[in-house]
Amino acid sequence: MADTWLPSLITATPQEGFELALKLSRKGVAETQPSTEIRGHLRAAYSQDTAQLIHASHVAAVHFQTIAAANGWWRESGQA
Amino acid sequence: MADTWLPSLITATPQEGFELALKLSRKGVAETQPSTEIRGHLRAAYSQDTAQLIHASHVAAVHFQTIAAANGWWRESGQA
Amino acid sequence: MADTWLPSLITATPQEGFELALKLSRKGVAETQPSTEIRGHLRAAYSQDTAQLIHASHVAAVHFQTIAAANGWWRESGQA
Amino acid sequence: MADTWLPSLITATPQEGFELALKLSRKGVAETQPSTEIRGHLRAAYSQDTAQLIHASHVAAVHFQTIAAANGWWRESGQA
Amino acid sequence: MADTWLPSLITATPQEGFELALKLSRKGVAETQPSTEIRGHLRAAYSQDTAQLIHASHVAAVHFQTIAAANGWWRESGQA
Amino acid sequence: MADTWLPSLITATPQEGFELALKLSRKGVAETQPSTEIRGHLRAAYSQDTAQLIHASHVAAVHFQTIAAANGWWRESGQA
Repeated sequence: MADTWLPSLITATPQEGFELALKLSRKGVAETQPSTEIRGHLRAAYSQDTAQLIHASHVAAVHFQTIAAANGWWRESGQA
Repeated sequence: MADTWLPSLITATPQEGFELALKLSRKGVAETQPSTEIRGHLRAAYSQDTAQLIHASHVAAVHFQTIAAANGWWRESGQA
Repeated sequence: MADTWLPSLITATPQEGFELALKLSRKGVAETQPSTEIRGHLRAAYSQDTAQLIHASHVAAVHFQTIAAANGWWRESGQA
Repeated sequence: MADTWLPSLITATPQEGFELALKLSRKGVAETQPSTEIRGHLRAAYSQDTAQLIHASHVAAVHFQTIAAANGWWRESGQA
Repeated sequence: MADTWLPSLITATPQEGFELALKLSRKGVAETQPSTEIRGHLRAAYSQDTAQLIHASHVAAVHFQTIAAANGWWRESGQA
Repeated sequence: MADTWLPSLITATPQEGFELALKLSRKGVAETQPSTEIRGHLRAAYSQDTAQLIHASHVAAVHFQTIAAANGWWRESGQA
């Protein structure tokens, strides 16, 4: 893991932040099961399993909260 | 996913924020299982399964927390 | 869902905030399974199932955290 | 539920805050299953089930976070 | 529970904060199942069960977040 | 545990913070099941189990949120 894959949590838009959140949740799995091949098999299985899909989206929601805070919530209104 | 579907976390009211939270939790699932047809089948199943309904509402609760913070909690009282 | 059911997160007391948190967690389920009749059946079942009762109270706890923050934690002491 | 059982989140010490967190997580269950008798049975069962004990302590942890924040974390050191 | 076991959330280092987080998650279980003997049996069982070990570490992570915030995150750099 | 293994939550980059989050989630498990040998067996098993991989990545996400906040979210843009 010599590569730089996470230089910053700052994104231009909330939508890009959401995509980064999905990336972080996948990375969390990949760090524990580094085999791309095994993960491919596992993913084929769990993408049919709603309980696991929902849990995966839960992890992404936690990361999205982190990223949104890091970006000052991408505010555009008059809120302080 | 070239479309812009999440331009902002800012909503006019808490209720609209709650609806956005539900949208984000569905989107989190859709990103992992992109097939609309398969998701339709899965949804028909899990909408009868309270454990999964509760978990889905948990994910929405996390997103709602993020959105509420982004909106300065939609304050209307004298709290600072 | 044309009705306004969530005009504000502000409540007079922590206890009313707790009740609102319970309402939000029920609403999160209702949005995914809109049939009142089916939810009635599901509720009869899961109210006997401690695992699900605990998870439901978990969702309410997340909402309560959001609501408490929105209300400035209803402080009454000298804390800043 | 006409009684006032949660007048404030403010406690004198972290330990009292922890006890209040436990109370809130029990209350979250009681609101969904109001029968004291049924809850007594359920509790006898789940108190032998580590998975559920751990989940119950998870809910208390979320409430404790809320209460700790409400109390300004009961700071006593020089941290700002 | 007349003893004082949680006088403060403040610790000298992040590592001591992590230990306190583990203590709080154990305490959350102990409050629901007060029998030391039964907990001893349960612990022998769940310490072989990765799903429960992971959940226990999840509860500790929530407490660690609370404790870290209470300690101003033990900052040492120039961040504000 | 006389060693110092967590002197600080401050890291140079978000990526190093993510690695620290993974370390903390493993440490949370290790504190409950201290046997390296047993953990080795358990890990071999759960690394094939997507439900547990996802939960492990959930714990890391909570720790990452803590670490990101501790680092002032590693901001580099103009946000305050």
